Amino acid sequence: MPRVSAEHLTARRDQIIDAAIVRFAANGFQATGMADVIAESGLSAGAVYRYFTSKDDLIRAIVDRVLGRAVAGFDRWLAEQDDPDPAEAVATAVDLVADVAGRAPVDPTRVAVQAWAEALRNPAVYDVVQGAYGTIRSYLREAAVRAQAAGRLPRDADPHELSAAMLSLVLGFLLQRLLLGDVPAPDYGAAVRVLLAGPPPATAS
Amino acid sequence: MPRVSAEHLTARRDQIIDAAIVRFAANGFQATGMADVIAESGLSAGAVYRYFTSKDDLIRAIVDRVLGRAVAGFDRWLAEQDDPDPAEAVATAVDLVADVAGRAPVDPTRVAVQAWAEALRNPAVYDVVQGAYGTIRSYLREAAVRAQAAGRLPRDADPHELSAAMLSLVLGFLLQRLLLGDVPAPDYGAAVRVLLAGPPPATAS
Repeated sequence: MPRVSAEHLTARRDQIIDAAIVRFAANGFQATGMADVIAESGLSAGAVYRYFTSKDDLIRAIVDRVLGRAVAGFDRWLAEQDDPDPAEAVATAVDLVADVAGRAPVDPTRVAVQAWAEALRNPAVYDVVQGAYGTIRSYLREAAVRAQAAGRLPRDADPHELSAAMLSLVLGFLLQRLLLGDVPAPDYGAAVRVLLAGPPPATAS
Repeated sequence: MPRVSAEHLTARRDQIIDAAIVRFAANGFQATGMADVIAESGLSAGAVYRYFTSKDDLIRAIVDRVLGRAVAGFDRWLAEQDDPDPAEAVATAVDLVADVAGRAPVDPTRVAVQAWAEALRNPAVYDVVQGAYGTIRSYLREAAVRAQAAGRLPRDADPHELSAAMLSLVLGFLLQRLLLGDVPAPDYGAAVRVLLAGPPPATAS
């Protein structure tokens, strides 16, 4: 029964990724070894190494999984828009971060911050992280290009640079949520909408 | 000569902080011990421990120094503004990050990312980081309040939430500069100005 076998393989793989998220989030990458992940997973060393041969492999799998969910959600939203509003694009991405952060077994956005730190000293992780955020930014760039075509942003602005500023609003939410924790996603999204709407119409004083 | 002695003490302290920045940036917090910092500083263990008794102390000193420079620069800018523009406030903070990043002996923004990761597993560092970003955000909040008073932002928006979005634009620049490195500060500042200006005036189609 190859179908059942494939499901079994996927479940095992997910079980190991979950264990890695728990340990990396709790202790960081440097202080976590394959032995810790194996212990957390409840599987044998041989079973774990059949799927992942190194911590770098695990990091790549975590990033792929978390990124895959967020990107799929954003892609669905973008496909539904006739003329995407930049503030709505950011607010949608922020909601996706808040949604991902609520996933079991442990908030994977904590692992994202560990991955940023590890990327600055580990070229293999740097490549994974650079690829992941390059991908997210390309979706935001697409939203910016379409907003420009719809007259929602000036057509002579550089969409790549615009997407960098939009990505900042998403990553900054992820980070402040973990470090300061005092602005819920809906309130943050409201502030982004206000900030990106430009100055209000002048009133008689 | 107490004045010379105070200068000597400050120079010694700075020498140790520089050494800690080099080692933390290169290897992260977890893989760096006091012995590494002592070796890098060229001072004796006794001399170093006279100033700093733990890695947490060193992290606090690094954050205080880097934050002190950036906050002083922002405060000078804010004092000169009659009606601060939110986009200019962000662009000014971004320029300060780019300026701090160019400081010897090693880009201290790399240590900021290590501090974020460490804060998620070390309560002492969490307190330092939370205090530091709370301080930066209070300056951005002041800029938002004054922009609201000048009619540059709606008066009914929450300035605290606005400051969170503004801080994201600064932290996101810091992070993307390190991980993607493809949008220089002036271009990023230009994109922030465009994004925060709101939709362009409609033209006849």
